Amino acid sequence: MLRHGTTGVWFVGARGSVATTSMVGIVALSDDRSDRTGLVTALPIFDTVALPAFGELIAGGHELTSTPLVKRAEALVDAGVLPREGLPAATVAWLELTERNLRPGIDPAAGEPPAVTVERLRRDLVEFRERNALDTVVVVNVASTEAPAPPSPATASLTALRAALDANEDVLPPSSLYALAAFEAGCAWVDFTPSTGASLPALAELAEARGVVYAGKDGKTGETLLKSALAPVFASRNLHVLAWAGTNLLGGGDGGSLSEPARRSSKLVSTNIGMHAILGYEPAGPTHIDNVAAMGEWKTAWDNIEFSGFLGTRMRMQFTWQGCDSALAAPLVIDLARLTAAAQKAGLRGGLPQLAFFFKDPLGTSEHALDAQFRTLCEWAASLPGA
Amino acid sequence: MLRHGTTGVWFVGARGSVATTSMVGIVALSDDRSDRTGLVTALPIFDTVALPAFGELIAGGHELTSTPLVKRAEALVDAGVLPREGLPAATVAWLELTERNLRPGIDPAAGEPPAVTVERLRRDLVEFRERNALDTVVVVNVASTEAPAPPSPATASLTALRAALDANEDVLPPSSLYALAAFEAGCAWVDFTPSTGASLPALAELAEARGVVYAGKDGKTGETLLKSALAPVFASRNLHVLAWAGTNLLGGGDGGSLSEPARRSSKLVSTNIGMHAILGYEPAGPTHIDNVAAMGEWKTAWDNIEFSGFLGTRMRMQFTWQGCDSALAAPLVIDLARLTAAAQKAGLRGGLPQLAFFFKDPLGTSEHALDAQFRTLCEWAASLPGA
Amino acid sequence: MLRHGTTGVWFVGARGSVATTSMVGIVALSDDRSDRTGLVTALPIFDTVALPAFGELIAGGHELTSTPLVKRAEALVDAGVLPREGLPAATVAWLELTERNLRPGIDPAAGEPPAVTVERLRRDLVEFRERNALDTVVVVNVASTEAPAPPSPATASLTALRAALDANEDVLPPSSLYALAAFEAGCAWVDFTPSTGASLPALAELAEARGVVYAGKDGKTGETLLKSALAPVFASRNLHVLAWAGTNLLGGGDGGSLSEPARRSSKLVSTNIGMHAILGYEPAGPTHIDNVAAMGEWKTAWDNIEFSGFLGTRMRMQFTWQGCDSALAAPLVIDLARLTAAAQKAGLRGGLPQLAFFFKDPLGTSEHALDAQFRTLCEWAASLPGA
Amino acid sequence: MLRHGTTGVWFVGARGSVATTSMVGIVALSDDRSDRTGLVTALPIFDTVALPAFGELIAGGHELTSTPLVKRAEALVDAGVLPREGLPAATVAWLELTERNLRPGIDPAAGEPPAVTVERLRRDLVEFRERNALDTVVVVNVASTEAPAPPSPATASLTALRAALDANEDVLPPSSLYALAAFEAGCAWVDFTPSTGASLPALAELAEARGVVYAGKDGKTGETLLKSALAPVFASRNLHVLAWAGTNLLGGGDGGSLSEPARRSSKLVSTNIGMHAILGYEPAGPTHIDNVAAMGEWKTAWDNIEFSGFLGTRMRMQFTWQGCDSALAAPLVIDLARLTAAAQKAGLRGGLPQLAFFFKDPLGTSEHALDAQFRTLCEWAASLPGA
Repeated sequence: MLRHGTTGVWFVGARGSVATTSMVGIVALSDDRSDRTGLVTALPIFDTVALPAFGELIAGGHELTSTPLVKRAEALVDAGVLPREGLPAATVAWLELTERNLRPGIDPAAGEPPAVTVERLRRDLVEFRERNALDTVVVVNVASTEAPAPPSPATASLTALRAALDANEDVLPPSSLYALAAFEAGCAWVDFTPSTGASLPALAELAEARGVVYAGKDGKTGETLLKSALAPVFASRNLHVLAWAGTNLLGGGDGGSLSEPARRSSKLVSTNIGMHAILGYEPAGPTHIDNVAAMGEWKTAWDNIEFSGFLGTRMRMQFTWQGCDSALAAPLVIDLARLTAAAQKAGLRGGLPQLAFFFKDPLGTSEHALDAQFRTLCEWAASLPGA
Repeated sequence: MLRHGTTGVWFVGARGSVATTSMVGIVALSDDRSDRTGLVTALPIFDTVALPAFGELIAGGHELTSTPLVKRAEALVDAGVLPREGLPAATVAWLELTERNLRPGIDPAAGEPPAVTVERLRRDLVEFRERNALDTVVVVNVASTEAPAPPSPATASLTALRAALDANEDVLPPSSLYALAAFEAGCAWVDFTPSTGASLPALAELAEARGVVYAGKDGKTGETLLKSALAPVFASRNLHVLAWAGTNLLGGGDGGSLSEPARRSSKLVSTNIGMHAILGYEPAGPTHIDNVAAMGEWKTAWDNIEFSGFLGTRMRMQFTWQGCDSALAAPLVIDLARLTAAAQKAGLRGGLPQLAFFFKDPLGTSEHALDAQFRTLCEWAASLPGA
Repeated sequence: MLRHGTTGVWFVGARGSVATTSMVGIVALSDDRSDRTGLVTALPIFDTVALPAFGELIAGGHELTSTPLVKRAEALVDAGVLPREGLPAATVAWLELTERNLRPGIDPAAGEPPAVTVERLRRDLVEFRERNALDTVVVVNVASTEAPAPPSPATASLTALRAALDANEDVLPPSSLYALAAFEAGCAWVDFTPSTGASLPALAELAEARGVVYAGKDGKTGETLLKSALAPVFASRNLHVLAWAGTNLLGGGDGGSLSEPARRSSKLVSTNIGMHAILGYEPAGPTHIDNVAAMGEWKTAWDNIEFSGFLGTRMRMQFTWQGCDSALAAPLVIDLARLTAAAQKAGLRGGLPQLAFFFKDPLGTSEHALDAQFRTLCEWAASLPGA
Repeated sequence: MLRHGTTGVWFVGARGSVATTSMVGIVALSDDRSDRTGLVTALPIFDTVALPAFGELIAGGHELTSTPLVKRAEALVDAGVLPREGLPAATVAWLELTERNLRPGIDPAAGEPPAVTVERLRRDLVEFRERNALDTVVVVNVASTEAPAPPSPATASLTALRAALDANEDVLPPSSLYALAAFEAGCAWVDFTPSTGASLPALAELAEARGVVYAGKDGKTGETLLKSALAPVFASRNLHVLAWAGTNLLGGGDGGSLSEPARRSSKLVSTNIGMHAILGYEPAGPTHIDNVAAMGEWKTAWDNIEFSGFLGTRMRMQFTWQGCDSALAAPLVIDLARLTAAAQKAGLRGGLPQLAFFFKDPLGTSEHALDAQFRTLCEWAASLPGA
């Protein structure tokens, strides 16, 4: 089944929950063992778009840890993320094959000069593409959220960036080194995290120059998804949101990494970024992200929305969202790989703001309302070459 | 301030909470005493539409009970629906003036022949328009929800209907008699309840013939409003809703009348009608409407949504909505009066499916998704004559 | 491990979810494979009470269906009720052995005369006790909830009951026939359902005469458990509950059987019975029990409590309870079997109101407050013979 | 009505929301204008206890701000805390009379030596008692929560404390200076806040020496109240709480002062203190207290409780509590004043752990379970001299 691979999906953070769930999903979808629930690109409206088939996707990735993918997948079975029937033999075989495509990522403790790192990563990508005879590779960042990077003037233009790297200056956070390597290798880039990644002028310049596409950032899978659907209700009904408070309880690796205040601050910015865009003002109210190990791979959000209506009447809405992060993220990662690959194959270049539907902090657009984003996505997909 | 009234708003159920709140709101808006929160037509996008100004609106209505409007409004102050500062003198004066415009409605116990009723109601409307020198009158049904009316073949065409009425046959429920009278008087009709009203072929025919517009039905103010914003999230993300259960607790007159099973069944149909349209299937799950007197004019809805995602993972969303029904409904009633009057003045005729945004069971369209309805509304409004 | 069985647990409804989970639990506890979470009798306070050890419990039961216990247990693994690691070999072996102890229950369609039924059931129990050399047998009713039984004068005394049965009159519902057979066989009786069971004067008389104990009824596992802990908060703080509304969504066999209005009415009575006892008045508000097949073995309750405080200030509490019915019920069934067996062995006779802690509708007491019930239980247990 | 005042209630923070609501409540109760909802001492069980009648209570207090009590009360009417009908003339008169009994509190910026402060406060109390011919005065701390005070060795004994004060050392936070003054004046002390107050060995010694009673600390009015009723459910049912997370949204003065991290930390300690005592372990999970100005005098708590049951099954409970802080606190303040005064009159001395029912962090006892606390309270009250 995997012989006709045409499109590579390269995960930064390849042994993480999201990457592992995505890989297991790719095999399941290839085999038609799984229904396509959760996949946006499985909606009828995408039937006529020339997207790579699930069976054409080949996975690889950068990673620092060494737990085998099969072990990671088994742990996700135990955690209730993957079906309790366990892993089919075909999945085990595919994950074992995929091990060949994993390469060491960036180890901040290693002291490797940035330019050396980028060249190493670039070669990994080129080698992956050539060895597997792929026409397109999409690099998807699903690594842990970084702390916000201090802005450097060297990122303002490609020329300045090249000079800084030549001088062995440390001006890019790891996520941006990965994006740089992707662009240098002629690969598309998707940032599913709130990390800096490709969101720098120098890298935008490079993507244009190299003729590659990119999209991001920070996958919209839970509380923010609902905010982007509910805030328009208040906006279109002209109801005034006095306070919108949210608490997110999550465990797993995500909970752990977000328990570091600096990393959490990256996430919090993303979570709130769309409210002003939709409402025209920023409602008061805290947003908390808390690590609760007992939640495992699951997360629960509770939001409390105080609003005033006609003649000042005070009212309230509350919601809870009890979701499995990896199960929500993985199909979107597959969607993004397929859509970005199709865009790349169609000769597009640069940022893809039409993919805003998938992101908390969409690059290149201020549209945060979910429904408007979905229409934009559908219209854009319809403009891609037909199957 | 009220001398230049050009547009009449005639309430069926004129002493009810919604009508009273609407009237108090009209005076507050005329005086610029109130901000315009909750009014859709106060959004900037409607600035260029030639809508009647708040100060141009004159109220009247049909009603069976006799509690003075000022007493009703004071009760709404006590119930927390209207501002606790109480009623300004201008409001009291306006409500007292409006008493002159109230006429007896339909008393089912009175045994009045339908044709006589319709002629009586029609004359009330014509007299109201002429005495106040109004160019347009919009009749808005905010009376208690009726039990579902048994379908009669006599309502299939205007000819059949006229023959039945001439024969003194009882083929129309009260709401439809009001709509018939409105059309015969050349008035626009808005049905804010799930009652039959104008939703009969014979009445659609009459509206076309008389050159009047109508819109309906069942104002979308709470749980259904959120359903119509949230169901598209599940649809566009291709998440499968396994069960969507809802409980609505409400008191006040609405709670009381809906505690009759037959009337409640009318409401339940409206509440669920849009889910199939948005999702493409009807999720399992009960919807309850319960009369809880202690809720007063407030209502609380709780919805529990079970859904499955990628690879069959089970997830859940829950929400509560704690709203004041009259405070949510009144601005929409004013919006509908303004928009319908503008459409009538612009020479439109027949049903106005473009107003689906306001309704649980929109006439003439199967679009139930809130955002799509809002776009349709904005586009339509932009096509009306400019101010 | 099972050689020293001394105490029988006979399930009416032996292949149901609660019985099956209880059986799997008994083996797990015997093997010390399971921690004792959920078992009240595993609390330190019971350490000195002479309760039968888990390894001494032998199961049997009446049942009409024929799916093997192992299949039922596997289905509960798939449903997430039992651990996903699946059934250990020892559990499978024990369930297979237990098959020998299952006998046909009462088939209402069979037309068997009541006296014949009772004698047949009695012999089953005696045979079970003798064959397994048990000193005590506790019959636990975990069958589907019955519709309320019409009261018959024949149940007012043992003499009248015997006469009616001799005359082949149909005066007892199945649950009471089971209780009658248990008493005639010298077995203790526990009713974990709201069915009539032993709650008839004639049967109370018989239990005294036969020297057997009984307890019930309707296991308190979810919404009612919380009500019995929360209502005392309002009572002791002198806060006035204006309305207490509840919605219960459940699937599984329980959801299915309770979707019949007559059976549901039995359950609803039990659910609300304690509020008046605790608060001194009956708050308004509907309680719904809804069958939502997608919930599977899980249930979700939502309660909304409106209350008034000092100087009339209106406040509100809401809760949701998302539980697995069988996982909540099974340890209590085991607790009740152990406690009832201990009481029987200690020579007690008649009703055991001291077990009210476990029941929605406790027999022989009007104490519904959870904490008071727990104290009573602990004091009573302390009075039983020490280990 | 107020001529026979026998008992003084002296508020530290006399113009705050809790004090003002308490004062308005005292007048309403004296006049029998109010029902007694929310007052624990109005339960029948207290009928035979010799508590001071509402009409016998005279108010006074320390305060730094100067907004008249009537203005503060009117603001509470506007905020929906006090009945919307507004303030009766008798209430206005009583509040105006009470102005005479207000004295300047401790101004940390004033640089007044501690010993001078204490003597000034003591004289205020003695003067209040003598001028009003009161036999007993209870000082109740309802001032803003302090930041935690650094522990000083000087507070370990009365001798050390006196030496430090003589040396003009700054070893006591303001709340403890108030408590010290109360004891020196022979007044009882109640701490309704989590501040240090009387909870120091030196002050305990003094209370014994002066023959006065004291109780505290931190009134249990919302989330913690429910925790202390719900944690025993998990404990008595042997269910294991994996994580208990809470978010508290509050506005008003309380929200504002708690938005300072140091003060909030005092509150957070109190909020969680009882869980270990009830459960035997400390469940994971954050507790947040957030200032949301739009909440006004209202607060909303959301708690999410993850627990495991039989055979490891994971379950969940969630609750929300939407309360008005002052309306919950004021009747308890009145209860505490009455009970403490009765204890003082009965000749008791020292700490009153029997009042734990009212407090998050009860002094002198580790009993946190609400129901057990209530029983202790009732038994203790029954031991007080009868009316």
